[in-house]
Amino acid sequence: MTTVQVNTPGGRYPIHIGAGRLHKLHESVPDNVTAIAIVTNPTVGSLYLKAARESLVHTGKHIIEITLPDGEAHKNWETLQTIFDALLENRFDRKCLLVALGGGVIGDMVGFAAACYMRGVRFLQVPTTLLAQVDSSVGGKTGINHPLGKNMIGAFYQPIAVEIDTNVLHTLPEREVAAGLAEVIKYGLIIDAEFFNWCEARVSALKALDEETISYAIQRSCECKAYVVGEDERESGLRAILNFGHTFGHAIEAGLGYGDWLHGEAVGCGMIQAATLSAHTVGLGSASVERIRNLVHAIGCPVKPPNLGTERWIELMQVDKKAEGGQIRFVLLPEIGKAVVQAAPLNVVRDVLHKTAVPAL
Amino acid sequence: MTTVQVNTPGGRYPIHIGAGRLHKLHESVPDNVTAIAIVTNPTVGSLYLKAARESLVHTGKHIIEITLPDGEAHKNWETLQTIFDALLENRFDRKCLLVALGGGVIGDMVGFAAACYMRGVRFLQVPTTLLAQVDSSVGGKTGINHPLGKNMIGAFYQPIAVEIDTNVLHTLPEREVAAGLAEVIKYGLIIDAEFFNWCEARVSALKALDEETISYAIQRSCECKAYVVGEDERESGLRAILNFGHTFGHAIEAGLGYGDWLHGEAVGCGMIQAATLSAHTVGLGSASVERIRNLVHAIGCPVKPPNLGTERWIELMQVDKKAEGGQIRFVLLPEIGKAVVQAAPLNVVRDVLHKTAVPAL
Repeated sequence: MTTVQVNTPGGRYPIHIGAGRLHKLHESVPDNVTAIAIVTNPTVGSLYLKAARESLVHTGKHIIEITLPDGEAHKNWETLQTIFDALLENRFDRKCLLVALGGGVIGDMVGFAAACYMRGVRFLQVPTTLLAQVDSSVGGKTGINHPLGKNMIGAFYQPIAVEIDTNVLHTLPEREVAAGLAEVIKYGLIIDAEFFNWCEARVSALKALDEETISYAIQRSCECKAYVVGEDERESGLRAILNFGHTFGHAIEAGLGYGDWLHGEAVGCGMIQAATLSAHTVGLGSASVERIRNLVHAIGCPVKPPNLGTERWIELMQVDKKAEGGQIRFVLLPEIGKAVVQAAPLNVVRDVLHKTAVPAL
Repeated sequence: MTTVQVNTPGGRYPIHIGAGRLHKLHESVPDNVTAIAIVTNPTVGSLYLKAARESLVHTGKHIIEITLPDGEAHKNWETLQTIFDALLENRFDRKCLLVALGGGVIGDMVGFAAACYMRGVRFLQVPTTLLAQVDSSVGGKTGINHPLGKNMIGAFYQPIAVEIDTNVLHTLPEREVAAGLAEVIKYGLIIDAEFFNWCEARVSALKALDEETISYAIQRSCECKAYVVGEDERESGLRAILNFGHTFGHAIEAGLGYGDWLHGEAVGCGMIQAATLSAHTVGLGSASVERIRNLVHAIGCPVKPPNLGTERWIELMQVDKKAEGGQIRFVLLPEIGKAVVQAAPLNVVRDVLHKTAVPAL
């Protein structure tokens, strides 16, 4: 097992990474917890709820299980409400612990439920997808979707610990592995060129989930993200670079309806678009754009964005949380391993959309 | 104008108290705000929305108005959603400002909306009831109700400033003035015996809203609360004493359905019950219990709690956020001006309920 320590103004917590961590969850439960709710979905629950419960039984605490419907389409208030209902019906108090057993959707919802229940209770993250392990379990972003935008309602709220079991990745669909690897690559692109090279050289081992390779990829991703979040918890500055590929990516997800493309797939494709925009604005070399496209393709993510129509693309990107006063701000790469955040002229954005997603007439 | 400065780990902000502050709201709007949403209800809106808007127009910012249905019964997710809908439809970004123009319900909901919208935007409190001015505008508690309990879903979130205009109190129904004065008295009871004496000696001036008297009462209440909250923002210790009278009070509100009794009325009555329990457990003198009952009566609050049935009372108090592992914890007074938090034996609680609310057979 390796541990990555996260330090933010909102809290300090450890990320434990290793094969079999699912059987050690009790090690992360504080003594003064009064009761535990394991929250999961039917897919993950059928595979791992039993193991999670068996390890938590060691704490001797009262345990309940809450199963939420599966998928991004259910990341809304109605689903969140079922968590609150169960907690109140079971008289869970302020010293309870919520355990998020699942991917990013479960993590976001359980984290937000923990942030809001009685104005804040503790939660333990047990991310079961590669994407959640390297992204949504680190940094305290929690929330739900609104019909007008993804993650529009939420909170910055930190877990007490994150338990990453690399064994659970072997039951992940190949598509989800690819989507997770897109975010892994992202860390290299925005902050660590050497890590990007390392990934480029190990595509097969990464895709095959070779234990040593994937463990290090998760560890390095968490370290990169922990560094960025530690510098800037509330996204006033540096943290925005974590959204590389996300302005385009969110538009893909919102434009097609959440749940069609996986989040990581949308981000993977969005990174190619953001790289193309970077070449037009901050001097990223065309060879680098090609390397990025090739690696996104090699890990198995789509490289061709959907044709939403230019103006619909613009509209969807303007509602992005990074937008300020109508201007769209993008994370751009002057070179691989270095990111900046700035507004791009709309005519250049339109050019890039024509080049990548919307064939000019 | 007087200013009370609040300092908590979650933020520092000023409370400005004075006649006519409603016309000076623009003084509290930071330059980098991109747009302003004034959120109010029909009752307050018809009286003060024009004045609020006219002062905010001085900022030159884009302003929208959101009117929520009136009353505690609407302090729920559906109403909150109408705020999010309006903000997103109007493309409000992360640098927008929400202005809460109204009583405690508006303050709680707008504060929670601000805490959650895009994971946190700024808000300005303009409390228009005495209760909100002395209580819910100070300390960062925001939230909504759940069918199974009051304020069960929420966040600790601080405004950027609070603007208290004492002029607006003159349009308040007498019942609401009384309910606000109950919370004023509370500060004397839990932390400042001299202030309790001061209130006792000025009941008529307080009820008549004499400018100098009510301004000082608000200032001293805010100072007391700011002191307690500054010591303990997240209610892990000292802050719990602010809930004096609230365990019984919440049970009254939940038992009768929110909106029947005013919150302050329920707390006023709950303070008499908590004082009676204090006499049975921590040695509060019976003369003090009588002084408390007399003052609650003198300000115009009900002193006779509803008969909910003993076991229903207990059940309602067990769901209170202060409850831990099934035990009910109470704020109790060893003497006037001094409060402690401790669990009380259920048989003693039953005795007190029989004495105050549920006639023994």
